[in-house]
Amino acid sequence: MNKNFKLSERAKKIPASPIRKLLPYADEAKKRGIKVYHLNIGQPDIPTPDVFFKAIKETKEKVIAYGPSQGLPILREAIAEYLRKNSINAEPDDVFITIGGSEAILFSYLLTCDKDDEVLIPEPCYANYISIGAMCEIKLIPIRTTVETGFHLPPAEEIKKLVTKKTKAIVLISPNNPTGTVYSENELREIVKVAREFNLCIISDEVYREFTFDNIHHTSIFHIKEAEDISIMIDSISKRFSACGARIGFIFTKNEKFKEALWRIPQARLCPPTLEQYGATACFKEFQKIVPRIKEEFERRRNVVYEEILKTDGLFTQKPEGAFYTVVRLPVDDAEDFVKFMLTDFNVNGKTVMLAPANGFYVSNRGKNEARIAYVLEEEKLREAMQILREGLKEYAKRKSN
Amino acid sequence: MNKNFKLSERAKKIPASPIRKLLPYADEAKKRGIKVYHLNIGQPDIPTPDVFFKAIKETKEKVIAYGPSQGLPILREAIAEYLRKNSINAEPDDVFITIGGSEAILFSYLLTCDKDDEVLIPEPCYANYISIGAMCEIKLIPIRTTVETGFHLPPAEEIKKLVTKKTKAIVLISPNNPTGTVYSENELREIVKVAREFNLCIISDEVYREFTFDNIHHTSIFHIKEAEDISIMIDSISKRFSACGARIGFIFTKNEKFKEALWRIPQARLCPPTLEQYGATACFKEFQKIVPRIKEEFERRRNVVYEEILKTDGLFTQKPEGAFYTVVRLPVDDAEDFVKFMLTDFNVNGKTVMLAPANGFYVSNRGKNEARIAYVLEEEKLREAMQILREGLKEYAKRKSN
Repeated sequence: MNKNFKLSERAKKIPASPIRKLLPYADEAKKRGIKVYHLNIGQPDIPTPDVFFKAIKETKEKVIAYGPSQGLPILREAIAEYLRKNSINAEPDDVFITIGGSEAILFSYLLTCDKDDEVLIPEPCYANYISIGAMCEIKLIPIRTTVETGFHLPPAEEIKKLVTKKTKAIVLISPNNPTGTVYSENELREIVKVAREFNLCIISDEVYREFTFDNIHHTSIFHIKEAEDISIMIDSISKRFSACGARIGFIFTKNEKFKEALWRIPQARLCPPTLEQYGATACFKEFQKIVPRIKEEFERRRNVVYEEILKTDGLFTQKPEGAFYTVVRLPVDDAEDFVKFMLTDFNVNGKTVMLAPANGFYVSNRGKNEARIAYVLEEEKLREAMQILREGLKEYAKRKSN
Repeated sequence: MNKNFKLSERAKKIPASPIRKLLPYADEAKKRGIKVYHLNIGQPDIPTPDVFFKAIKETKEKVIAYGPSQGLPILREAIAEYLRKNSINAEPDDVFITIGGSEAILFSYLLTCDKDDEVLIPEPCYANYISIGAMCEIKLIPIRTTVETGFHLPPAEEIKKLVTKKTKAIVLISPNNPTGTVYSENELREIVKVAREFNLCIISDEVYREFTFDNIHHTSIFHIKEAEDISIMIDSISKRFSACGARIGFIFTKNEKFKEALWRIPQARLCPPTLEQYGATACFKEFQKIVPRIKEEFERRRNVVYEEILKTDGLFTQKPEGAFYTVVRLPVDDAEDFVKFMLTDFNVNGKTVMLAPANGFYVSNRGKNEARIAYVLEEEKLREAMQILREGLKEYAKRKSN
């Protein structure tokens, strides 16, 4: 091994995923015969719609050829129509297919920021904004939100104080991963004012658009006229159609400078996967048959998980409003240590639970005593997992006090 | 439109693909009813193997779930076995599945270079090394190669002169896209000496490994013991299995620092597409039934295209040794202008030909009178396309002299 050989500084700084980095402990547990309930990852157990598989199986292509860099026209049209049904003024030319929402994040950062530029982001946030931010050498500036206020946004005056000459964009994730918070129209309007005042781009992640509960209405950034020319929407089929491994996301924007660059930049990676674009097109066309049922399922699970949290001594959160996550405060000092304990030293009848320590969703060093729960299992398993979590917390407390 | 709103400097600098940027002219031609033979893009017309489709159609997955960030274990094992059959000392742990060869380029740059670091690359080169280099803000330093010497490498002494304190890596593409050149074992050994002397990483793109003609033997960088701990191999199923739209590539490396980072960094984009990894696995297992036939087909086409080039006044190249490209010198001052002319102002019985202007494959400003020909069509079409090219050249010369 050549000792003089160095990894780049940026490669050193890209963090492991907080959702994935403890997976080796889960794998070890499984090797010992332990069943692990994964509440750590946003991977629903809901079957991918039949029409997705059907469209792929029925494709008549003989050659899996490169598609257009911006995605297949049929998919861009289907998405524009879907967005119009959501009262968004969309044309196929405003839609750019990406390789998952992850690539939409990458492109959004590349479009708006140079090295050392700053992006405001409410924390905790979806961890890939942090890792892809490190890849792009962007400085993320956290807007602090807390469990006490259900992770809603602080007043605009607080946010303005964070803006510097280097600030180029604000990221909003609503419904939020990892908190489950849905920002109100008023919250968004306040952000739009800040963005316009300081010439910031709004990067609006609406991947969980349909998953809002208790009749909470989802406001898209594109429902606000004043945001239209300064916004980039990030979206994906992963959760909506339970097709995380398809790697089909998209960017929607009306900004002509971004659109010009989005015609050019994606050519560097040729195209998104071809077959899954057919599957995604079929899903968007059958949207009404697919999504409302999935949403209802998640609302039931949200009810279950929240009920179980209320039953559990020491767990604290507000009622999740959307997506399929919640961030809970745990009665422990170090959630990562607790998650490891659950995987290495604890089980109930050969079963245990994995959570995602929340610290990795924070830009700052906060959240050490919090974890994200993804309620991606069916009701019965979810109840059992929460019961195991409850017992694990008791056992962990006992050991710590010894 | 908000006038104060600026695109990032790096986004401005990422060039459009030289292969794709003139496609709107081809689209316009097609709208006028013109048949366009695409010799511009490395998209073979060879059917993707049946086993690829079969593996996808037979998958029993109900949920298209996230896979491991490093790729499915079955595919990593199949690739390690495939590499061992190529006399490469490979273990599944050395293989990291990427979203196409493009992502393998991105990761290789991120691993080795910080902003403003330098990478040596023989030019002309595969254009995505240029665009992804711009994305990563790397400075590419061209090693000049020319059509007179069949685009082979200059002596090591010449290459050493290009090394500075900022140089971190050398890219080698063999068989080469866009030139079709296959570097000899001696050429590689010379590069390895330079790399070891200056602590450079070798990024070895071997996507076209099997496509070498006239019994030329392909030397992998991993056939050279002294390169093993300093090299990253970039590879892809796109050409080998005619599955460009599958977006399955891989990185192979034995370097422990790179391997640690490749466990971490790909988590930022979750995973490669799941279904295509099953397809790719099936193809690697049936390798012997698939690839030798494809190789023979390309050798036949190489013979055709070279014969046609020799027949054409003013075209000049050396006999292509591998891949399915050649860069030819054209009897024109501006190949881009000529390519546009072929699409907008010329046809033979309603048919025309599209080439890729070679200038976009150069890091420097060279290659303006060269074009890349991808011999991706079957023999008869290829002959017809070359005939049309010949007539187009005559007509273009006539118009220029008027």
